[in-house]
Amino acid sequence: MAKAAKTLDELFHDTLKDIYFAEKKILATLPKMAKAANTDDLRKAFEKHRDETETHVERLEEVFALIDKKAQGKTCAAIVGITEEGAEIMSEYKGSPALDAGLLAAAQAVEHYEISRYGTLRTWAKELGLSEAANLLDQTLKEEKATDEALTKLAKTSINIEAEAA
Amino acid sequence: MAKAAKTLDELFHDTLKDIYFAEKKILATLPKMAKAANTDDLRKAFEKHRDETETHVERLEEVFALIDKKAQGKTCAAIVGITEEGAEIMSEYKGSPALDAGLLAAAQAVEHYEISRYGTLRTWAKELGLSEAANLLDQTLKEEKATDEALTKLAKTSINIEAEAA
Repeated sequence: MAKAAKTLDELFHDTLKDIYFAEKKILATLPKMAKAANTDDLRKAFEKHRDETETHVERLEEVFALIDKKAQGKTCAAIVGITEEGAEIMSEYKGSPALDAGLLAAAQAVEHYEISRYGTLRTWAKELGLSEAANLLDQTLKEEKATDEALTKLAKTSINIEAEAA
Repeated sequence: MAKAAKTLDELFHDTLKDIYFAEKKILATLPKMAKAANTDDLRKAFEKHRDETETHVERLEEVFALIDKKAQGKTCAAIVGITEEGAEIMSEYKGSPALDAGLLAAAQAVEHYEISRYGTLRTWAKELGLSEAANLLDQTLKEEKATDEALTKLAKTSINIEAEAA
């Protein structure tokens, strides 16, 4: 196919593969972050989000089915970079009272990447008349936003104060 | 320095270097995105944001000065990945009516990365009692959020419709 022929439905499909790869990467990363966390609150938040992420993967598989495509990931350089930074934090701040603050920051970078991707995909699904897909993407978008808000609350309370006091 | 000794003020400094690198990368990338854009509205939005980004770099330099550190970047794997994806879009969708939709998505991924970093840095600045730094970071955070909203508006109107109609 000529490059010039690429259309919005192909962009939608390409971006769906990007976020599918990202969600699977996040699914593999969250248990490591939960294990690393100093506080119970943060560990529980990561475990809860891991369970939600399983549902997000399933919803993406439903969206692939709705456009008659096989569920398939495509390397997402953005999430690779974001999770690399998270791994760096886990290694550099291991044993530090500031570790949880760093883990929270890494998790919020992940959430914001997902918020931007789901927002974009939902807009495109609507444009393409894929209302069922738009609904599924919107459900996940709302959960990612709720997770980000919960992490902000955690960041503003106990965790940073703990790091500062140490 | 022992790894265990790393504290919140070091995490703040490390993350400041991360976003400083990211802002400089964005400053270099926005003119390419402006040049690639199909529509005047999007080109102007990228040019406007490029000018704002210069101010964001200057504000970061003020924050470095406030903590008595030299303004210095540190490779940010996340922004490298995010901008790589943008470059891929520019190449794969060159000449396509869906190009602007792809550019908008890439720009919003950048904005969300910045929103997460500035939100984190502002919270930490407050925790560390750096109220002037918190103020500067908050100003940029507000501008990044406003840019993201302006891009969402653009994405919901002319551009996707144009891509769909082609």
